[in-house]
Amino acid sequence: MHKGLFITIEGPDGSGKSTQIHFIKRFLEEKGYKVVLTREPGGTVIGEKIRELVLDKNHKEMANVTEALLYAASRAQHVAQRIIPAIEEGSIVLCDRFVDSSIVYQGKGRGLGVENIRDINDFATMGLKPDLTILLDIDPEIGIERAKSAKEADRLEQEKIDFHRIVYDGYKELVQMYPERIKVVDANQSIEEVSKGIEYILNKILLREE
Amino acid sequence: MHKGLFITIEGPDGSGKSTQIHFIKRFLEEKGYKVVLTREPGGTVIGEKIRELVLDKNHKEMANVTEALLYAASRAQHVAQRIIPAIEEGSIVLCDRFVDSSIVYQGKGRGLGVENIRDINDFATMGLKPDLTILLDIDPEIGIERAKSAKEADRLEQEKIDFHRIVYDGYKELVQMYPERIKVVDANQSIEEVSKGIEYILNKILLREE
Repeated sequence: MHKGLFITIEGPDGSGKSTQIHFIKRFLEEKGYKVVLTREPGGTVIGEKIRELVLDKNHKEMANVTEALLYAASRAQHVAQRIIPAIEEGSIVLCDRFVDSSIVYQGKGRGLGVENIRDINDFATMGLKPDLTILLDIDPEIGIERAKSAKEADRLEQEKIDFHRIVYDGYKELVQMYPERIKVVDANQSIEEVSKGIEYILNKILLREE
Repeated sequence: MHKGLFITIEGPDGSGKSTQIHFIKRFLEEKGYKVVLTREPGGTVIGEKIRELVLDKNHKEMANVTEALLYAASRAQHVAQRIIPAIEEGSIVLCDRFVDSSIVYQGKGRGLGVENIRDINDFATMGLKPDLTILLDIDPEIGIERAKSAKEADRLEQEKIDFHRIVYDGYKELVQMYPERIKVVDANQSIEEVSKGIEYILNKILLREE
């Protein structure tokens, strides 16, 4: 049985996360790994209910702090009920966005403070850290354009470019802080080239874990 | 106009909080203060929905960490939407249990860690601290007996005596840490004597604030 691994994928909207995460899943499965692909709220009943509460348009009076704590609560349930059991079973858990997203979007973008968001998430995840984080690095302007053409612009995509610039810089700071964990792939390239970059990173970590 | 004040009442179940908090309200109103009596979730729509989620008996899989974050989220909304606006209006806000309860019940009693619970609550309350906390001090055994005879035993009251002892000791540690903020009243006395002790404390803080 393989040892479990926890891999997260991060990047601005429009960086191609969805496409690449499916590439990663196929790549790992072809190598014989059991892969669990997930994203919050991760199919937990409690997480879904929390998310409904956050996204309910009648809740215009919701404080930013309340929202951040609710997202952390949804994450806590996802980690406890799905992620940790899957890792312990020996699966590779592949998660579309995790704590780094909260740090850059809520901590930096919404100005709630990086330390604050880190603290509540350390608690929510019971200290679980990804073994590897793949950051798809794309110029914010290009990312927004791509995201717009791909689907209906959601709330985050409507925010002005300044916000996306802050988020982008936030990701870059995280790379400086955690160079061992976070590996950057230039997502301005073609899909195939991005996949190749990811493949290289994955092969290195799989070799290390064997 | 009076300057707003934030007063919290703490103590084990059966310590007589409900009786005394109504005494405090009358006492302050007779002196001409505008008093807002509240307890979580404090009548906020969002807070009520969060509470329903926590208390839903179908959610047996809820992780302790999720529960603690949901309570913090409910508190965040209560603070932002009700408590801070009332204090800013010049009212005396009287709150039945606040962060100290989370620290002793969740941090100590449920073993989630005092530091963790303090961190998420500092975030939830945006640093708001009570100007005064009145702790009704009663032997845990006596408190449980009183609480049982007063009403149907709820979940917390069903926990075994060890839990209540830990909670009690937790309160005593908080008094050591915050002697300026937390004032202890011996709640083993008669209702009238307890009220007299509270009156003495209130007169002192009102004098100080004038």
